[in-house]
Amino acid sequence: MIKKRFEDIQVGDKATFSKTMTEADIFAFSAITGDFNPIHVNIEFAKESIFKQRVAHGMLTAGLIDQTLTNIGGAGNIHLSQFVKFMAPVFIGDTVTVSSEVVSKDGAKNRIMVKSAVSNQDGKTVLEGEALIMIPREK
Amino acid sequence: MIKKRFEDIQVGDKATFSKTMTEADIFAFSAITGDFNPIHVNIEFAKESIFKQRVAHGMLTAGLIDQTLTNIGGAGNIHLSQFVKFMAPVFIGDTVTVSSEVVSKDGAKNRIMVKSAVSNQDGKTVLEGEALIMIPREK
Amino acid sequence: MIKKRFEDIQVGDKATFSKTMTEADIFAFSAITGDFNPIHVNIEFAKESIFKQRVAHGMLTAGLIDQTLTNIGGAGNIHLSQFVKFMAPVFIGDTVTVSSEVVSKDGAKNRIMVKSAVSNQDGKTVLEGEALIMIPREK
Amino acid sequence: MIKKRFEDIQVGDKATFSKTMTEADIFAFSAITGDFNPIHVNIEFAKESIFKQRVAHGMLTAGLIDQTLTNIGGAGNIHLSQFVKFMAPVFIGDTVTVSSEVVSKDGAKNRIMVKSAVSNQDGKTVLEGEALIMIPREK
Repeated sequence: MIKKRFEDIQVGDKATFSKTMTEADIFAFSAITGDFNPIHVNIEFAKESIFKQRVAHGMLTAGLIDQTLTNIGGAGNIHLSQFVKFMAPVFIGDTVTVSSEVVSKDGAKNRIMVKSAVSNQDGKTVLEGEALIMIPREK
Repeated sequence: MIKKRFEDIQVGDKATFSKTMTEADIFAFSAITGDFNPIHVNIEFAKESIFKQRVAHGMLTAGLIDQTLTNIGGAGNIHLSQFVKFMAPVFIGDTVTVSSEVVSKDGAKNRIMVKSAVSNQDGKTVLEGEALIMIPREK
Repeated sequence: MIKKRFEDIQVGDKATFSKTMTEADIFAFSAITGDFNPIHVNIEFAKESIFKQRVAHGMLTAGLIDQTLTNIGGAGNIHLSQFVKFMAPVFIGDTVTVSSEVVSKDGAKNRIMVKSAVSNQDGKTVLEGEALIMIPREK
Repeated sequence: MIKKRFEDIQVGDKATFSKTMTEADIFAFSAITGDFNPIHVNIEFAKESIFKQRVAHGMLTAGLIDQTLTNIGGAGNIHLSQFVKFMAPVFIGDTVTVSSEVVSKDGAKNRIMVKSAVSNQDGKTVLEGEALIMIPREK
């Protein structure tokens, strides 16, 4: 995990990250965020919902984007903003793959725009995102 | 934690959630997202950074919004999208308070817009966010 | 999560909390309490037991009462005592619901008695409890 | 960790368990119980409270009794009931010691009464408890 300079990063740079979503992930996310919405932590409630089973927090799936931003922007990049659109549910046991790509650079502000899409094991897009990161100039 | 109907929710409805950010939270977030950027998990790297100390993942702070959405939208609300702007770093030991408020309702689509601001113990705004949630109609 | 005054709380006030008990919960409880009784953490031992499978710690299920006490008594309530009677095992995957209710108030001491029952997804009562909480007077 | 027979256990049998209470323990207990009372997880709120700092959940300290029950009753003992009285707060960094002792046996029902006291590093008693456990007869 190395630092990168703004010049090191090019439009078209890509990174991916993939993992299986587990029950433990969901409970850990509830644990650190305090969100115990029963759709995440209650099997019986979830059975009666439109999803028929427990669903990962959207913001947990969104969090997986972070790893690709670190890869693209290097250690020391600063996350300025993030937009995410939740398009389909992620269930326990689903394997999600984040694909991120640099879509533009703003040389005046050392800012980089990164688009991300997250898909599941069936190729369905479950999330789309857009991040703005900054690469600080060295002292 | 009960279900709410779309009609139960009014523009101006508010919810808050507050907690101290701990080292354990940050490591748990790294654990479930795979983002081990040294600015979050490496004291020595962080000392040399512009922040001089480890910083919570922006998306971890953003995750705290979830609890207020569950309170406002009730069990069964569906998170459609989230925008977050990271305005200041959150350090270990900072106590952050999320304040969320319903700013508009779209009766045609059962959608609700919720604006959130997260401040630290000094009253500084560290994050601003905007969520779109849906309240499903009962069968 | 706001403070409540003693006067704000009435006999008959209720709160519920519900979640599915997971393997991760049981291991986390073992981790923080040091109780590695094989009935909780050893599949092979548990298979040979009268329960035929691993069982959640009774005191873990009892801990779920806390959330309802916080809801009923508000932030700042003080837990003075707790009695719990374990009536049936809670297994991994069971969804338990705590139902708590204020049964009496002692105005002389600012104390409130709260009765709780925990049931599983089949409606079976797995635990009954009785808590004494105090609502401190404001300075 | 071996099984014990009812006859193996005598009035006067003792067990102790001791550990330092950490911030991570408290956040893990919140995580599995859903109790985010600010007195446990919010430094700023706790500063303004009568305790002046964050306090461990009483039921977390109570959970430490479990380990001594497993030692006294052996693997396979069944926890029937637990009474706990919270006498003083436990703070982060406090080292608590549980001392448990068999005070009576009921041969007709294979039940054993265990009294517990938990003290901190200053010798102050923070909790007193009384448990009823059963030792199942072998098949």
